[in-house]
Amino acid sequence: MRSGLTRRPTAVYTRAMTRRFKVAVVGATGLVGREMLRTLEERAFPVSEIVPLASPRSAGMLVRFAGADVEVQPVSEAAFEGVEVALFSAGAGPSREWCPVAAKAGALVVDNSSAWRMDPDVPLCVPEVNLDAARTRPKGIIANPNCSTIQLVVALKPLHDAAKITRIFVATYQAVSGAGAGAVASLEAQQRQLAAGQPIERGALPGILAGNLLMSWKVDPATLYQEEELKMIYETRKIFGDDTIRVSPTTVRVPVVNGHSEAVTIETERAISPEQARALLALAPGVELMDDFAQGIYPQPRDASGKDAVLVGRIRDDLGRAPGAHGLSLWIVGDNLRKGAALNAVQIAEGLLLGR
Amino acid sequence: MRSGLTRRPTAVYTRAMTRRFKVAVVGATGLVGREMLRTLEERAFPVSEIVPLASPRSAGMLVRFAGADVEVQPVSEAAFEGVEVALFSAGAGPSREWCPVAAKAGALVVDNSSAWRMDPDVPLCVPEVNLDAARTRPKGIIANPNCSTIQLVVALKPLHDAAKITRIFVATYQAVSGAGAGAVASLEAQQRQLAAGQPIERGALPGILAGNLLMSWKVDPATLYQEEELKMIYETRKIFGDDTIRVSPTTVRVPVVNGHSEAVTIETERAISPEQARALLALAPGVELMDDFAQGIYPQPRDASGKDAVLVGRIRDDLGRAPGAHGLSLWIVGDNLRKGAALNAVQIAEGLLLGR
Repeated sequence: MRSGLTRRPTAVYTRAMTRRFKVAVVGATGLVGREMLRTLEERAFPVSEIVPLASPRSAGMLVRFAGADVEVQPVSEAAFEGVEVALFSAGAGPSREWCPVAAKAGALVVDNSSAWRMDPDVPLCVPEVNLDAARTRPKGIIANPNCSTIQLVVALKPLHDAAKITRIFVATYQAVSGAGAGAVASLEAQQRQLAAGQPIERGALPGILAGNLLMSWKVDPATLYQEEELKMIYETRKIFGDDTIRVSPTTVRVPVVNGHSEAVTIETERAISPEQARALLALAPGVELMDDFAQGIYPQPRDASGKDAVLVGRIRDDLGRAPGAHGLSLWIVGDNLRKGAALNAVQIAEGLLLGR
Repeated sequence: MRSGLTRRPTAVYTRAMTRRFKVAVVGATGLVGREMLRTLEERAFPVSEIVPLASPRSAGMLVRFAGADVEVQPVSEAAFEGVEVALFSAGAGPSREWCPVAAKAGALVVDNSSAWRMDPDVPLCVPEVNLDAARTRPKGIIANPNCSTIQLVVALKPLHDAAKITRIFVATYQAVSGAGAGAVASLEAQQRQLAAGQPIERGALPGILAGNLLMSWKVDPATLYQEEELKMIYETRKIFGDDTIRVSPTTVRVPVVNGHSEAVTIETERAISPEQARALLALAPGVELMDDFAQGIYPQPRDASGKDAVLVGRIRDDLGRAPGAHGLSLWIVGDNLRKGAALNAVQIAEGLLLGR
């Protein structure tokens, strides 16, 4: 995994800023929180003061920002005083409790948990797709979608605009970093045990992931879908503003540290050829086309990790479509910690406050 | 990986046999060839004489069968004299050359390569699905389907019979053992390098698979599909004897040593509930139902490796189906070396010669 060190430590100071913001990062010691700090810095977000917050357990730790070590404070009402931007990635429970507090204190709140995503008074935003939805926010809170959904809608938006997507089949190949730092450490320990021929211990994982696959998100007993799958259904509809889009998801954890992949087949109302899709995606914001499959060029999680762009390849006619129907298959890979979480949150703040 | 040692060495001798067969295994030193020898032994196939054959490069090696070391002979016309059953797993080139020779010598030929699968005069057989198709074989050759296709059709056959499947979406999570012993050794070497933080070498793999995903089957330039994907389309249709079934496949190699997994969504002509599907699959030949997802029970590749049965779980309504349409999603895991290759070939011989 990446260290907490600055990659471009001087970036913050290389632009003349007219306005700077006091920014809180809640959950600053987690994988996504640390990525949020790095992203603010790398993108030269105009920060006047950084306020790293976490649970009392993690308070007192140091995080790195703009070349300095900053002490993590415990979350409290007082901690949000004067905060203008609050980026949350501390889990649904703390978000339910503290996002309204931060909003009441006047902050623009972007929450990465699932707590507020389906609240009708909370916009669910991916800037490349629906930044305008975030301009109206009755609760002062904007929700960051699930990582798997973000990369899906970024890649599908240009195709939806061109041909109107009616149905999405998606099977995911999700990296363990989405489950947090403890899960990453446990996968790495399991891989060492596997390589050494030792007994494999679960650690912070719900089973053996090294050399194996797991499907261990929380199960909705009514549908027997994993909550991760339900998120892909309902968040996709909300972001596209179209409740008629039908989504058939299967989400799977694979022994990959970082970078989610998705095998996707779409049905569209109007015809769209692979060539047209490639031309649209080559110009699409937030997308990098990696599609020369006859030459062996296609996205891999190793390519995506550390990149801002969602990588798209393997665009091809769906050979399984019905006569007269329209459809494509494609392969979408993204850095689940960056665009799938931290970057998207920072981009929402940029879009609303800086007009970027 | 499994050793070449006998698991139940006495099985061959525990039944009174009325008729025994001289059996050749071509490609006897490969992963599938060794699995064929083990499978013949474990299932007490009535062998009067075993003839392990391979390329001249591998001739002279010893393989284990029924408690004895047997020397591998080079493939030749003479080697098939008197052979009554010839199981081939030596690649498409050798199969094209030698299957007709073995058939001409009078052997029942079961070929595991892709050489003959789409030949209209060669039946493509999965005993649980279409053993009868193998009773007519103008060329004396029966083709064993692709590993990914076998486990798919075994699991879907009871649902197809009950509700008529019209469409299949399938994304695979394929183990590296399907690419041969060299690929397995290279993945294990890569995993050691990854665990030790060393540079990762490709070895016999087409890229870095440890901690990553690859899509490196041969590409069909006309469709930009991988040949593995096209096999799943055309072999499924041939086995089900229904050219109208529409299949949308994506095949992906995952860092798993053995055991292929498949995320599948089907559309059916008639209604079928998850409960009905479970009841059918609980009784289906070659299937083991592992489906109590609310209790965390679902198939994993680690469960499937070493098992004869195709494991099926996560049976659920397809929440993405159109109003009035019918469909299910499910998760299918199988041992690609056993049912996906060796076991299926032996079962074809059993079905035709022993009436098992």
